[in-house]
Amino acid sequence: MALPWITTSAPPRSFRSLFKWGAPLEFKHPNPKLYALLKEVFSLSDDDFLTAHQQNSEQGFLGMEDVAAEQVATLDPKHVTALTQICGAENADTNLYARMKTAYGKSTLDAMNLRRKKIQHIPDLVLFPRDKGEVQKIVAYCHEHKIPIIPYGGGTSVTQGLEAPQQGVALDFKKHMNKIIRLNPINQTVTVQPGMLGPDLERQLNQAPQLFDADEAYTCGHFPQSFEFSTVGGWVVTKGAGQNSTYYGKVEDMVICQEYVTPVGEIKTHEFARSSTGPDIDGLLMGAEGTFGILVSVTLKIYKHLPQNTRQFSFIFHDWEQANAAVREVMQGEFGFPSVFRLSDPEETDVAFRLYGIEDTLLDKFLKMRGYLPHKRCLLLGTADGDREAAKLIQSKIKTICKKHGAISASTYPVKKWQVGRFKDPYMREDLMDFGFVIDTLECAVNWENLSAVHQQAREYCKSFSPILCLSHMSHFYPQGTNLYFVFIKNFASFEEYKKFHTGFLETIYQAGAGLSHHHGIGRMLAPWLFKYHGPQVEKLLKVVKGTLDPHSILNPGGTLDL
Amino acid sequence: MALPWITTSAPPRSFRSLFKWGAPLEFKHPNPKLYALLKEVFSLSDDDFLTAHQQNSEQGFLGMEDVAAEQVATLDPKHVTALTQICGAENADTNLYARMKTAYGKSTLDAMNLRRKKIQHIPDLVLFPRDKGEVQKIVAYCHEHKIPIIPYGGGTSVTQGLEAPQQGVALDFKKHMNKIIRLNPINQTVTVQPGMLGPDLERQLNQAPQLFDADEAYTCGHFPQSFEFSTVGGWVVTKGAGQNSTYYGKVEDMVICQEYVTPVGEIKTHEFARSSTGPDIDGLLMGAEGTFGILVSVTLKIYKHLPQNTRQFSFIFHDWEQANAAVREVMQGEFGFPSVFRLSDPEETDVAFRLYGIEDTLLDKFLKMRGYLPHKRCLLLGTADGDREAAKLIQSKIKTICKKHGAISASTYPVKKWQVGRFKDPYMREDLMDFGFVIDTLECAVNWENLSAVHQQAREYCKSFSPILCLSHMSHFYPQGTNLYFVFIKNFASFEEYKKFHTGFLETIYQAGAGLSHHHGIGRMLAPWLFKYHGPQVEKLLKVVKGTLDPHSILNPGGTLDL
Repeated sequence: MALPWITTSAPPRSFRSLFKWGAPLEFKHPNPKLYALLKEVFSLSDDDFLTAHQQNSEQGFLGMEDVAAEQVATLDPKHVTALTQICGAENADTNLYARMKTAYGKSTLDAMNLRRKKIQHIPDLVLFPRDKGEVQKIVAYCHEHKIPIIPYGGGTSVTQGLEAPQQGVALDFKKHMNKIIRLNPINQTVTVQPGMLGPDLERQLNQAPQLFDADEAYTCGHFPQSFEFSTVGGWVVTKGAGQNSTYYGKVEDMVICQEYVTPVGEIKTHEFARSSTGPDIDGLLMGAEGTFGILVSVTLKIYKHLPQNTRQFSFIFHDWEQANAAVREVMQGEFGFPSVFRLSDPEETDVAFRLYGIEDTLLDKFLKMRGYLPHKRCLLLGTADGDREAAKLIQSKIKTICKKHGAISASTYPVKKWQVGRFKDPYMREDLMDFGFVIDTLECAVNWENLSAVHQQAREYCKSFSPILCLSHMSHFYPQGTNLYFVFIKNFASFEEYKKFHTGFLETIYQAGAGLSHHHGIGRMLAPWLFKYHGPQVEKLLKVVKGTLDPHSILNPGGTLDL
Repeated sequence: MALPWITTSAPPRSFRSLFKWGAPLEFKHPNPKLYALLKEVFSLSDDDFLTAHQQNSEQGFLGMEDVAAEQVATLDPKHVTALTQICGAENADTNLYARMKTAYGKSTLDAMNLRRKKIQHIPDLVLFPRDKGEVQKIVAYCHEHKIPIIPYGGGTSVTQGLEAPQQGVALDFKKHMNKIIRLNPINQTVTVQPGMLGPDLERQLNQAPQLFDADEAYTCGHFPQSFEFSTVGGWVVTKGAGQNSTYYGKVEDMVICQEYVTPVGEIKTHEFARSSTGPDIDGLLMGAEGTFGILVSVTLKIYKHLPQNTRQFSFIFHDWEQANAAVREVMQGEFGFPSVFRLSDPEETDVAFRLYGIEDTLLDKFLKMRGYLPHKRCLLLGTADGDREAAKLIQSKIKTICKKHGAISASTYPVKKWQVGRFKDPYMREDLMDFGFVIDTLECAVNWENLSAVHQQAREYCKSFSPILCLSHMSHFYPQGTNLYFVFIKNFASFEEYKKFHTGFLETIYQAGAGLSHHHGIGRMLAPWLFKYHGPQVEKLLKVVKGTLDPHSILNPGGTLDL
């Protein structure tokens, strides 16, 4: 049975248009195998789904309605006038919809709130600054008059990083401050404005010979799942990671220098790969998530664009333990690192086999015959990038190590399927929520030693809410450890039930000894754990830095980083 | 003519024993070729050398005298008693010689001051804490009574990082806090106390199977020129770099987490390779050079010990420009990085040919015949480490790139000669100073784009003091840039003349746009430039962090990092 997925663009000013992921007319509907899995796991029939859908429709949970309700803007009109004059009337917006757009990220909590028509924590004014000079003027004005500023990039935060609980002004950098300032082929760096979107940056780097008269084409190497809709500024201030980070590094490995506007003046760091000139200022400013200063430009490492050299691979392991041993050996092998590298646990492997259409194929039958069994087997997939021979060597070494740990090559089919869908999975969220299911993710940093304990405790917690699907993978690797990424799917009975589950999951990860976040950042969502995690001295330090750079606490106030 | 080099151990409590580099009975005398070069460049005869030597002897500049003069200790005896009780009488020393030992580093300025018998800026008491608990007690006591603390590791600072202008207490970690706390083969990390010397750490890692029951032998990968006499704590707090840093990274790339004792409490960071939990606390604490807290343990990445895989190479280029293009291409080639990688400019290449005994050999004649001429040619030498095939690939790629840029292989002889002497060159300093010559170094960070300008302006400045020898090399490489290391030799007429030259050199590097230091750190020597370089906001930040962690300003006070 085909379910009545919504396949039309959300109405222009609707709640749905605010929470729907990605492009208005782009969708990824759960395929029949995933639908069958949901019915099976949650003991549901076709009828249950249709009923859920109708209930949601009746209650307006599809969010098709106009965001008609007015939210009072408390900002004094004289401030609105003064700030509007800085950017020009065409670059200032007091419209409710525009204001809502900057205040909601793409977390499940955001979507749930919007489906419930809960409008809160939105700014009074959205400004679209045209250059650094305007940012300086805005910051100076807001500092003088104690008006909150919330920087806004692509709006893909999943940690409530964009809310404006004290209202104020949102700065949207995507409209104007979205360009390459300088491509430097000598240093192999690019200096970028914060509002540049991933695909724009990548396209221009790929076309460097035509656009910048460079001898080579380049890549930024940074491809988070939000790539199509997130901005360079957002990547930097949250310390994001791309899906190819095992080779290209996290964004903090790519940043060479930065320029911030703060209420007390400008900070511009120096363009050196390394230096020994006291504490690391770039590291102190990165990850502040808009609370220390407004990023106005950043200089990133770039890499040669060599897609012709990319090697693909996938392997199936008998079990999680053998797979873990293999990926650790790869990362500690000193022959270079793979680019995409992604190991799914048994539950995720089973679901991947369904989603990628591998289940029940000849490949699947062959694997079962060879003893790679459902509920135990694990899928590893990846690519190797860089120089042609180096990529080839990395692929060949990985193959040797995987075989040593009992794995069998699963052809390049799984990695090809994964690549096609790599930026598309978030689209499934709306479809599932329309039918009463939450699909959400949480992630954390682990070292090799505590990986198993964290994985096990997180799964145990999750399964105590059975029936529930809990898929895990590692996707960002280092010689000293990796990350753990959890995807869970469940038909929670209420917002409160979901929220309780979610808070307990974060507490479980924290108690298990994981790093609170590997690459999503802290925002307001993880803020209550941050200083327990770092301890009282770090709390003092961050607060005193905050107080120095932003004495009136106007930058992204109200809880981000618990500041 | 053989010059009367000093070949005896310096008298036990002499000034010379304080400023002489390295082991008491180890020497590296300038060879006849270098001696001939000095006479040639500075238009001197054998007689001039002997006269200089006699004059130095007569004036006591050889420093053979006992450090008899007493320096008044101003620390209240009740504090001495209280602090002594913390560590035990056998771990406390008020003897002048012991106090002097911790206050002088190995810079030329230190040596000159000691040769001139200038005793200043020394602590009143030296303590040898046995564990973190004692450090906590000492810090608490000193915080309460506002007594300065100067942490001391190997004493190899070349930036006046160890002086005690406000006297107080030096903490020497080498006596007790010099051990591996934990080797973790799973995470491939080692947790170390700050006073552990390089060779002790390296030996224990190499013997991990025997000492720690590990499956593999490891290496720390960090081999600064001071390796034999510097400590892990010193590496970390100054952000040092080893000679193999192009592959293994600078020490800040190796640090996974740290533990500091500060006057307001303890800070312990988490053992994750990367995370997204706000600003980088490790980066903020590293490079503080003892002014923010006392490092009591650090967890470092380690690597497999695979010396059997090391490949060696050296190449001669026609000129500096071609050589620069080649090394940049190597670093941006995406096939992995060499380990040792060292490119000498023409003047250093000429001197290296003399020192390594290549000049006038068959190899030299062959090179000249092929058009690789003195005063123009440049020597590149290096090694490749890691996995066997990866190291082989790196070597082969480097060869191809070097040949493309007109270079010819110079066999492995130069790199073998360099390796034999890699930790020994500093020994020449005493010999040269005994004969009135200063041999000193300065280093800075550059990116590829400003490398030439910095090199040219530094050399121009240097040569304005002709006759002078000014050798330069790059030895720490990144895709985005490298460092420049200058070695200069000159017979300065006076301390003041040297000091004037030195200050002007630093100002030249700063004005040319280089990073003040790539790996020596700031100390008190570069402090006057630090905040000009970073700007007023960073100055505020560092001062407020300092004020928060060390409200009474007791930690390494009196100018380090200009704090």
